[in-house]
Amino acid sequence: MRKKFDEELRHLNNLLLEMAMLNETAIKKSISLLDDKDEAIAMEVSNYEERTDVYEGIIQKQCLKIFVEQQPAASDLRRVSAALKMITDMERIGDNARDIAEICMMLPDDYASNKFPLVKQMAEATIALLNKSIDSFVNMDIDSANKIDDEDDVVDNYFVMIRDELIDIIKSDFDPAAAIDIIMIAKYLERISDHAVNIAKWVIFSIKG
Amino acid sequence: MRKKFDEELRHLNNLLLEMAMLNETAIKKSISLLDDKDEAIAMEVSNYEERTDVYEGIIQKQCLKIFVEQQPAASDLRRVSAALKMITDMERIGDNARDIAEICMMLPDDYASNKFPLVKQMAEATIALLNKSIDSFVNMDIDSANKIDDEDDVVDNYFVMIRDELIDIIKSDFDPAAAIDIIMIAKYLERISDHAVNIAKWVIFSIKG
Repeated sequence: MRKKFDEELRHLNNLLLEMAMLNETAIKKSISLLDDKDEAIAMEVSNYEERTDVYEGIIQKQCLKIFVEQQPAASDLRRVSAALKMITDMERIGDNARDIAEICMMLPDDYASNKFPLVKQMAEATIALLNKSIDSFVNMDIDSANKIDDEDDVVDNYFVMIRDELIDIIKSDFDPAAAIDIIMIAKYLERISDHAVNIAKWVIFSIKG
Repeated sequence: MRKKFDEELRHLNNLLLEMAMLNETAIKKSISLLDDKDEAIAMEVSNYEERTDVYEGIIQKQCLKIFVEQQPAASDLRRVSAALKMITDMERIGDNARDIAEICMMLPDDYASNKFPLVKQMAEATIALLNKSIDSFVNMDIDSANKIDDEDDVVDNYFVMIRDELIDIIKSDFDPAAAIDIIMIAKYLERISDHAVNIAKWVIFSIKG
């Protein structure tokens, strides 16, 4: 029974990792559109979003299968429940990446990211945070999961810096529509990092309860 | 066994309804701060957010208790799983209401809502959508749950209207910092309505699978 259970858990873990990799690639590709508005890449991000939804469904079924067939208790129960919650965050990260891609494709051609290096830096910090939260899950590492909430401050600070930069730029005759688009991209990145914090919280829940 | 199970389910339903009522009140109070920056009300919204977190913990425990003690199958299993997912949305609605309150308290005194009637209209549409999604859960009404996704377009349209209004206003010398604050309030309302859509999707999942 335990052997079968461990197999089911390993399968669940692999699915979660695959979903997390979809997330990471989708964010990277969506942000690359700031430099180069490539229709094909934008389409890929949209495909990633759909695949993320499919993964959510598959993982949910796997969790319910484990609940029913294995009737897990204590930390096993918490771990499967945590997986069920984490996929909600990962599904929304997919949505956020698609939202970023859509906004990037609507930006005028001359708002390339070299005008806003902070946005790319914020994206890098966001991806790093997401990777750490997924790693903390894979390794069931409570110490690194505990650190994620503090590290999210870095991403939040980028949001404030970008916001302030845009306020200055609008005053000096920058197109306000583009400014609002860029602040929305920053907001989506901030939201992705909030999801990473949630994932880390589920890791802590599955270890400590 | 079934009687005990029905009792546990009824208890779960009551908890979800209480949590939904916290959501509704928190949104109403947070938006009222647009008219009147009342410190005491802002504090209340923050308390509501904390109580929402407590409810999430209690409901989660209740769901895990049902999983373990009752080992539900088929539609019962889906219903409890749906509850476990819905509380994630409700917890975040609490966060969004608090975020709105925080932004309102930082707005300059003269940006009262009568300058932005669209924001209050958007808030009303958002609360209406949330109420419908919760009602569809209480009544297990798949027809009304199916309609929520379309009705969300109303809220999304408000966002676009507010965004366009603000772009015009910034061009005519409106304070860009306040404009960005107001667009963020609209974004949080849009997000709350997305959570309402998610809740309705969980209702559909728990009925149809």
